[in-house]
Amino acid sequence: MKWRPDWLRGYDRRVAGQDGLAALIVTLMLIPQGLAYAMLAGLPPQTGLYASILPLLAYALCGSSRTLAVGPVAVVSLMTAAALGPLFAPGSAEYLGGAMLLALLSALLLLGMALLRLGFLANFLSHPVISGFISASGLLIALGQLQHILGIAASGQALPQLLPALFENLPQTHLPTLAIGAGSLLFLWWARRHLQPLLCACGAAPRLAASLAKAGPVLAIVVAVLLVGALQLEQAGVRVVGSIPSGLPPLTLPPLDLALMAQLLPAAALISLIGFVESVSVAQTLAAKRRQRIAPDRELLGLGAANLAAALSAGMPVTGGFARSVVNFEAGAQTPMAGVLTAFGIALSALLLTPWLHDLPQAVLAAAIIVAVLGLVDLGALRHTWRYSRQDGAAQAATLGGVLLLGVEVGILLGVGLSLLLFLWRTSRPHMAVVGQLPGSEHFRNILRHAVVQSPSVLSLRVDESLYFPNARYLEERIGELIAARPQVRHLVLMCSGVNLIDASALDSLAAIAERLRSAGAQLHLSEVKGPVMDQLQRADFLQGFGGQVFTSQYQALQALDPDCAERALRQMA
Amino acid sequence: MKWRPDWLRGYDRRVAGQDGLAALIVTLMLIPQGLAYAMLAGLPPQTGLYASILPLLAYALCGSSRTLAVGPVAVVSLMTAAALGPLFAPGSAEYLGGAMLLALLSALLLLGMALLRLGFLANFLSHPVISGFISASGLLIALGQLQHILGIAASGQALPQLLPALFENLPQTHLPTLAIGAGSLLFLWWARRHLQPLLCACGAAPRLAASLAKAGPVLAIVVAVLLVGALQLEQAGVRVVGSIPSGLPPLTLPPLDLALMAQLLPAAALISLIGFVESVSVAQTLAAKRRQRIAPDRELLGLGAANLAAALSAGMPVTGGFARSVVNFEAGAQTPMAGVLTAFGIALSALLLTPWLHDLPQAVLAAAIIVAVLGLVDLGALRHTWRYSRQDGAAQAATLGGVLLLGVEVGILLGVGLSLLLFLWRTSRPHMAVVGQLPGSEHFRNILRHAVVQSPSVLSLRVDESLYFPNARYLEERIGELIAARPQVRHLVLMCSGVNLIDASALDSLAAIAERLRSAGAQLHLSEVKGPVMDQLQRADFLQGFGGQVFTSQYQALQALDPDCAERALRQMA
Repeated sequence: MKWRPDWLRGYDRRVAGQDGLAALIVTLMLIPQGLAYAMLAGLPPQTGLYASILPLLAYALCGSSRTLAVGPVAVVSLMTAAALGPLFAPGSAEYLGGAMLLALLSALLLLGMALLRLGFLANFLSHPVISGFISASGLLIALGQLQHILGIAASGQALPQLLPALFENLPQTHLPTLAIGAGSLLFLWWARRHLQPLLCACGAAPRLAASLAKAGPVLAIVVAVLLVGALQLEQAGVRVVGSIPSGLPPLTLPPLDLALMAQLLPAAALISLIGFVESVSVAQTLAAKRRQRIAPDRELLGLGAANLAAALSAGMPVTGGFARSVVNFEAGAQTPMAGVLTAFGIALSALLLTPWLHDLPQAVLAAAIIVAVLGLVDLGALRHTWRYSRQDGAAQAATLGGVLLLGVEVGILLGVGLSLLLFLWRTSRPHMAVVGQLPGSEHFRNILRHAVVQSPSVLSLRVDESLYFPNARYLEERIGELIAARPQVRHLVLMCSGVNLIDASALDSLAAIAERLRSAGAQLHLSEVKGPVMDQLQRADFLQGFGGQVFTSQYQALQALDPDCAERALRQMA
Repeated sequence: MKWRPDWLRGYDRRVAGQDGLAALIVTLMLIPQGLAYAMLAGLPPQTGLYASILPLLAYALCGSSRTLAVGPVAVVSLMTAAALGPLFAPGSAEYLGGAMLLALLSALLLLGMALLRLGFLANFLSHPVISGFISASGLLIALGQLQHILGIAASGQALPQLLPALFENLPQTHLPTLAIGAGSLLFLWWARRHLQPLLCACGAAPRLAASLAKAGPVLAIVVAVLLVGALQLEQAGVRVVGSIPSGLPPLTLPPLDLALMAQLLPAAALISLIGFVESVSVAQTLAAKRRQRIAPDRELLGLGAANLAAALSAGMPVTGGFARSVVNFEAGAQTPMAGVLTAFGIALSALLLTPWLHDLPQAVLAAAIIVAVLGLVDLGALRHTWRYSRQDGAAQAATLGGVLLLGVEVGILLGVGLSLLLFLWRTSRPHMAVVGQLPGSEHFRNILRHAVVQSPSVLSLRVDESLYFPNARYLEERIGELIAARPQVRHLVLMCSGVNLIDASALDSLAAIAERLRSAGAQLHLSEVKGPVMDQLQRADFLQGFGGQVFTSQYQALQALDPDCAERALRQMA
């Protein structure tokens, strides 16, 4: 890994200008997001700002993407709330300590994965599982924020708790809050589509307008703050963000409580994996557009460092955000310097802006969250996946339903478990074909598809898959059946042209098969074994013990075991 | 499934005679084993006999093997003790109820697996994991029985508890017990090797002698019972089996305690899987010798029915035993009637023999267990596996060490987890080759191995593996790297001759790759897509959206995308 970044060489004023503009726009986007996702995670608002300062610097130093924008993101905030909600009272010092500890554990897991090159662990999360998880999370988050729009109290880890609480408290709806919340929702929903054309019409360059439009929430915040102050809405019962301490984040250690660590470890593992997968896929998409490269191990390092910084500066778990990174990219960010400048922007805001945010209604933040996360919900994807593959569709539906009904962690584990099960099921019955000789040739083809010549005493079986533990038992069963049905067979030749690997389980199975065949008066042989597989077989005693031969080609096997039949088939006209 | 067994047709006196002789010998073997494995499981001795009556009838009715002998086995007894030991006092009514509940849960799981055709779940247990588990269990069982040989109390779930307890209590060794125990050990160890030749020398037929030799423990029991009675050793402090109630097993329900069920479910799942795997492999080995067939789903049904019978008749979890089934087979058993007759033999013993077993020293049973299980320990297998494959060796070592140091369940879960991880790791980086055209031909080969012609604008990549979630991300990374390193490439042709499946994750990855390539000014194409894969792709929108073409052969792709280069290579001399 290189520690002196390439991009520093040749860094000039032009690039700095582009990075600076991108940083300004991302800062404007990140302030409301930081406040909102801290609220979503059940944390004091400043936590979201703190998590957008040092972590950005850490990622800029260690990450491999030039344009990824890290910070608090909705899904990770939801997972943080799900992990800490059952343990501590939201807003308490213990809760904040728990969030820092989650960030620390995620950091250690990510750094450990970087060190041990365990990035492949993210493969456990198949796309259908991630897609189902993201959609369900978006729905849960949006429904969970309705309480702030309505000005009531109604929370819950999943629909069975959340929906009854919402319905029960619906009569207590606070009308001024609802007016502000609904107004913000309508404005932000409108702004998503129509702010950019409006800005263009006002003369802004299209790409700049697109980026500026993403700062719509800032406009909503300014208007709402002015409105609350002017109409004294706080006194009327509208909940506001309240006093946010001014200043930079304190440097501090999370509580190093071993029992709590053990308790939070599963949640931290899921947060790390989900955060990593999401972040890497954004980074890869953006890098590809400029034919740049992403090093997955460097990404683990970068995200690990960012979370370490978050843990030490009173923050919350962070990762690369999708919308934010796209804005950064489109606004023209060229290098990680944009991230550094964003960090300075947020630091400046934490120093100077916080007094102005006292009157910010929580309903506006909730509206910003809802509009952001509803973009994540894609229920049509489930239909697509199901149409493409029943198994993948089932895994996606299980994750979606599991997260909605049972909560974030149970849901995702359900999905991962099911996709592993279905994967195992799918690979446990590989394609095998009894083959025979094509008349007039030395080729062997599936007897079910071609008119081929079969020897009565030699059974030729082609396996179209590597032999390993998921299918070792099936191989035994299949061969047992074939031999039981053909009493006259004296030789079985396993044609291994499609076998890239034979693991220890399959080796044991082959030995068992050879032994069983022998006791039934038949002999196992192999043919067309690939070089690397042969090398490995030679490290075991199998080749000495199994009593058969290894033939270079299936034709040679037939020539040796039933020369008359092979000769006859070769002479026969096709 | 057929419920009227084939073997009943044509059942005559000759076959009945063979079955009867086998049943007699298996009964003689099963009486001490039943008593001993009940003791090993922490249960009253009669439990082992009860578990050898109705379960055998149930298996004979429902199973598919003609010669499998079911009943209590050592490894399952150890797992029973490991599951119940931490919850109840051994020998208590709750403990017995727990064992019946374990049998019931195993029965339900096995029957459920039969119904839902989930036998493939057993594939989670790779051979190295099973081998490591069996060896470690054998060692744990043997060490755990030392207390009975020494006449001291020293038990524990794993070595860190067991060894200190043994050393601490060693000074309390009871010499008369040790004399009986050590004597039995020496006799049984000698009998394993030398009883058969002796019987032959006395005129017995070799096969009969081999089977009779397996009844050696009965001889030890008879001598020991006489000795204890004659020398009044029970009064001298030698622990004996004591009063065993005479009679047939009571028909009763296990305690249907839902909380306890939930607690025992993981143990029951492991017992079912391990029992099934072991039993099926014995059954397959024996069936193959006579070219008979085993139906794995019928085996699930048979073992499920046997455990249900055990649960309802005050028994313990059962499965097919290795040594016992081999004896049954070699003694000439032809049909499941041998199992039915064995059940009658054990029932008769339970009715008539139990008063004579009062004076049976526990040390003799312990010696029988030790001699039986030491045959399971095969530490050399670890060396073999390691030499063959580091990954399989690591999984085996983890299971072995885990079971010895942490206990049965943790150890096996560790092994399964590690083998899944290593499997995922192994399949997550499939072989991919950049290919070029062999001069003078239409064939494409790896550029690293052959002198081939490459087009500067068309990159040909062959993937030698199905595309699914374990490798979808790697595909994205690899193509990202290749394209980043070749700025002049305008087309990427993915050669899919080795791709048997594209799952939803890989489909998403292909769409992402196509999108990224397009944003980098290149186009994705596919070639040599197999029929079933093409059928599936057509069910998704991918083919319409990805913008590229699907070529029948790699050569046609080159002809279309870079005709000059393809033509030149074809004309060139090899």
